Amino acid sequence: MLSNKFSSTHVKTIAIVGKPMAAGIGDSLMEIAAFLASIGHKVVFEAETARNIALDHVTALSPEQIGLQADAAIVVGGDGTMLGIARQLAPYNVPLIGINQGRLGFMTDIPAERMMPVLADMLSGKIESEQRSLLEGEVLRDGVNIFQGLAFNDVVVSRGSGAGMVELRVEVDGHFMYNQRSDGLIVATPTGSTAYALSAGGPLLHPNLGGIAMVPIAPHALSNRPIVLSDSSEIVIEIVNGRDISVNFDMQTFASLQHHDRVVVRRSRHVITFLHPSGWSYFDTLREKLHWHEYPSAEGKLK
Amino acid sequence: MLSNKFSSTHVKTIAIVGKPMAAGIGDSLMEIAAFLASIGHKVVFEAETARNIALDHVTALSPEQIGLQADAAIVVGGDGTMLGIARQLAPYNVPLIGINQGRLGFMTDIPAERMMPVLADMLSGKIESEQRSLLEGEVLRDGVNIFQGLAFNDVVVSRGSGAGMVELRVEVDGHFMYNQRSDGLIVATPTGSTAYALSAGGPLLHPNLGGIAMVPIAPHALSNRPIVLSDSSEIVIEIVNGRDISVNFDMQTFASLQHHDRVVVRRSRHVITFLHPSGWSYFDTLREKLHWHEYPSAEGKLK
Amino acid sequence: MLSNKFSSTHVKTIAIVGKPMAAGIGDSLMEIAAFLASIGHKVVFEAETARNIALDHVTALSPEQIGLQADAAIVVGGDGTMLGIARQLAPYNVPLIGINQGRLGFMTDIPAERMMPVLADMLSGKIESEQRSLLEGEVLRDGVNIFQGLAFNDVVVSRGSGAGMVELRVEVDGHFMYNQRSDGLIVATPTGSTAYALSAGGPLLHPNLGGIAMVPIAPHALSNRPIVLSDSSEIVIEIVNGRDISVNFDMQTFASLQHHDRVVVRRSRHVITFLHPSGWSYFDTLREKLHWHEYPSAEGKLK
Amino acid sequence: MLSNKFSSTHVKTIAIVGKPMAAGIGDSLMEIAAFLASIGHKVVFEAETARNIALDHVTALSPEQIGLQADAAIVVGGDGTMLGIARQLAPYNVPLIGINQGRLGFMTDIPAERMMPVLADMLSGKIESEQRSLLEGEVLRDGVNIFQGLAFNDVVVSRGSGAGMVELRVEVDGHFMYNQRSDGLIVATPTGSTAYALSAGGPLLHPNLGGIAMVPIAPHALSNRPIVLSDSSEIVIEIVNGRDISVNFDMQTFASLQHHDRVVVRRSRHVITFLHPSGWSYFDTLREKLHWHEYPSAEGKLK
Repeated sequence: MLSNKFSSTHVKTIAIVGKPMAAGIGDSLMEIAAFLASIGHKVVFEAETARNIALDHVTALSPEQIGLQADAAIVVGGDGTMLGIARQLAPYNVPLIGINQGRLGFMTDIPAERMMPVLADMLSGKIESEQRSLLEGEVLRDGVNIFQGLAFNDVVVSRGSGAGMVELRVEVDGHFMYNQRSDGLIVATPTGSTAYALSAGGPLLHPNLGGIAMVPIAPHALSNRPIVLSDSSEIVIEIVNGRDISVNFDMQTFASLQHHDRVVVRRSRHVITFLHPSGWSYFDTLREKLHWHEYPSAEGKLK
Repeated sequence: MLSNKFSSTHVKTIAIVGKPMAAGIGDSLMEIAAFLASIGHKVVFEAETARNIALDHVTALSPEQIGLQADAAIVVGGDGTMLGIARQLAPYNVPLIGINQGRLGFMTDIPAERMMPVLADMLSGKIESEQRSLLEGEVLRDGVNIFQGLAFNDVVVSRGSGAGMVELRVEVDGHFMYNQRSDGLIVATPTGSTAYALSAGGPLLHPNLGGIAMVPIAPHALSNRPIVLSDSSEIVIEIVNGRDISVNFDMQTFASLQHHDRVVVRRSRHVITFLHPSGWSYFDTLREKLHWHEYPSAEGKLK
Repeated sequence: MLSNKFSSTHVKTIAIVGKPMAAGIGDSLMEIAAFLASIGHKVVFEAETARNIALDHVTALSPEQIGLQADAAIVVGGDGTMLGIARQLAPYNVPLIGINQGRLGFMTDIPAERMMPVLADMLSGKIESEQRSLLEGEVLRDGVNIFQGLAFNDVVVSRGSGAGMVELRVEVDGHFMYNQRSDGLIVATPTGSTAYALSAGGPLLHPNLGGIAMVPIAPHALSNRPIVLSDSSEIVIEIVNGRDISVNFDMQTFASLQHHDRVVVRRSRHVITFLHPSGWSYFDTLREKLHWHEYPSAEGKLK
Repeated sequence: MLSNKFSSTHVKTIAIVGKPMAAGIGDSLMEIAAFLASIGHKVVFEAETARNIALDHVTALSPEQIGLQADAAIVVGGDGTMLGIARQLAPYNVPLIGINQGRLGFMTDIPAERMMPVLADMLSGKIESEQRSLLEGEVLRDGVNIFQGLAFNDVVVSRGSGAGMVELRVEVDGHFMYNQRSDGLIVATPTGSTAYALSAGGPLLHPNLGGIAMVPIAPHALSNRPIVLSDSSEIVIEIVNGRDISVNFDMQTFASLQHHDRVVVRRSRHVITFLHPSGWSYFDTLREKLHWHEYPSAEGKLK
């Protein structure tokens, strides 16, 4: 997943994707579209976006059509918007540019107020690409696949409210790891390491790292610490005990896991490609989002 | 809640409470009963316990009757058994002795294999008492009390599985504290500080401390750390956002909290009294249960 | 340590204390002094403050003299300034008002730009007082006191750099607690719970809580969690093993602890009184300092 | 660092290394030596080991000579013994077998009481090899290398006792990461992730993961969380502020870092190869050492 140069010269068709149900971003999207057309790109809109902002005379495509036809997509919204479209476009590996109208996100790191000059620079070749991994998972009941999903952030097995702890048996690459009791278990990509896994006490994983984080949620045993595995690992989580247990692939929930069901998680063969302005650094995003940019003051901690 | 001497001379009637649905503890209970009778005590059995072990010719009382008639109760089982009966007897403040047949518990700290000599010693006067606080709480909807409960461990407001985060607005003694996003919030007694709150990252609270721990579960903001309040505090938790939210008082669950519902938690006027052998120390229990008794080895951590 | 009403009517003499070696705060201090004189107070300056800002025609007193003569002190600086003077004035319990010229502190919570109207309000009676506890400690070698100190934040026993772990034997109220291996052990007041103890993973303690936090620094055993004790506890920390070990009382360091030395820590009989504007809440300070005031956004954590 | 089959057929010369200054392991070492000779291996002893157990008629070699002449080494002792010899043999990549006479270690995972049948099995071909990474680092002052070292566990930059916080400026692959204030910073290999880094709150890293953990020690900013980087990263830690700062490469300490000194850490080109009995799993070691093998009991956490 090393960052490498991305050639902007082959980018002909560009898709525009807006935040679902966001009123008032139509002007921004049309400004982008006009600019893209002016420098010779073919512009298409994601169908729901086109509907939302009542665009009649534009080419409106489904995510699948975008996947087949577009050379890049510009996503305007927050990290949630990016998360949704990225997972849909993952099988087609359409490179993505993220623009945020509010507070910057982890994945939408171009501020809307500077988007025009930044896009101009990027499309003139001052551009870098970065690849992010995804997880794929399936639920096996008596050995039969009854559900499957793709996750850009995380696969989470967890208990319902008021349902006591779950007991999970975890196996990695055929080796027994442990039985753990907890509120649940998060299996996260580097991208997901700044989301729910971070709240549950997990480490940050640099996107360059070929790793998967397993982070227990409120584990009964204090030594059940987060562990980072190679992303070539296959993880099997078997439901041993507990009630009202579900598995969640980003936003897709399968809600009625039974004892002996097995959730199998591995790295997807798909990747997601983000495009950034030249000179971009992941640490810039971390500093901004985690307030590391507040330079320690002279007063600091008092001892 | 300071530990003070408990006079064993006024203990006439002693109730025996066994683990619910535990087969094969009848002999132990009868051995205790025979011993108590032999030294002049009146012995009564908790009704369900009497049924479980098919005791016909004994006095079987409900928890309420035990509360009114017994001067002490001997509880044989695990911490779960103690937790259940302690909350029921709390209004009557019947002192409790805990005996454990398996691994020692936090609250059932007399091993079954040594119970006879230990009980003999305790009832001859080598005894100490210790008081533990409880929480009481209620759910207010539009200002009307729609649920109330007592908690010996904790009051937990939490989300359902696959339900995203909750947003809670917390007020303490009428002062706004914060809005927090998380999987939920644990309000724990010192007794509960070794249970769920510990798994969620909370501190241990010594039972002598007049304190209440508020421990967020997987909070979105990394600075939403556990906080310990004086036990004179009144805590109000208002549901701001989220789906499938419940509140749990130890084992009693109220499952359909709505936005704007308020959960009010304060220290109960009741206390629970534990009886221990003379010389008992809370730290002995912690060392045993948290493996602190494993004296650091010569090899230790490698640096 | 419950907050209670403080009578401003008996405040005659007010001392002014500035940040040591801070250039350019002279004007602020003179503005305060002129205002205090205008409403009938006698104004004195802490001697070093007077020297720093080259005040010749003012009454300059040592901290001890301030302790004996002043009815209140106004401290202008950061938390470090407050920490230093508060510990010196602790034996005299002179109430303290904290004004901060930079980022607000935990203890200096009145912003300099609003100090004049706030002080006017406070001195007209819109004032609340709050008491904070201190720790006192001593180092015993072969049973003989060889060092003693007072701490407003914390007493810290810790290893030197490159010196491996320390092994400490901890006793509380004569009961053996554990032997722990770590980088060290922090014993903190509620005031200190937002300082070094927080960095080391300790909980926040509300100042109203009569508690002391014991927070191990990077403990070898994962179950050596922070524990909160009643502030009536006496804590004895014995040096069992390690090199280059020191004990630190806020800023006073005793640097050459030997094996078998015992550090004894208990609550001081002194207290520190802070004065706040009416309506003040400790949670306002926490929200500001810990960024809890950033209301969770609509986008928030992505799952 | 994927585990792969190791051919035992080319193992001719085997070195035996004992715990330094351990009395009474001579018999064990001689038993191993006799067995190895009986199946046709040439046996040599590490020189200090030979001296310790007063072996006169054996071939005693320095670590360097072992590196050049031995096809494998059997290390009898604890993890500390292994850590020391492994770093010395790293340039020669002599495969290592670890035998522990006390509690099993993370790296010495064959119990002494079963060593003879296990060794027989392994040398007959039932053997697996696993590769572990090392870190190399150097201290640059005014751009000049003034110290360098190799670390199998970790490189640690930290403050002295009683010295306040350090402020460190961290750069990764030429990108500014942050300035952090803390007690110090640990840069750990997967092997080191179970040592000091774990105590400081870091995650476990599976040895298969090509990763490096950066774990701050008691960081001032609560969002300065552990981060895992690809092991192709070059990390530069510059001393910005603080007193009495040292850098520690496993056991080699360079103790007088000055402001503006830069500690550069990257993965070493050397690797360490461990030999295990067939069927070995890293998770078995974790379960044993972290008490994960205690299967959650029926009683468990009480909620």
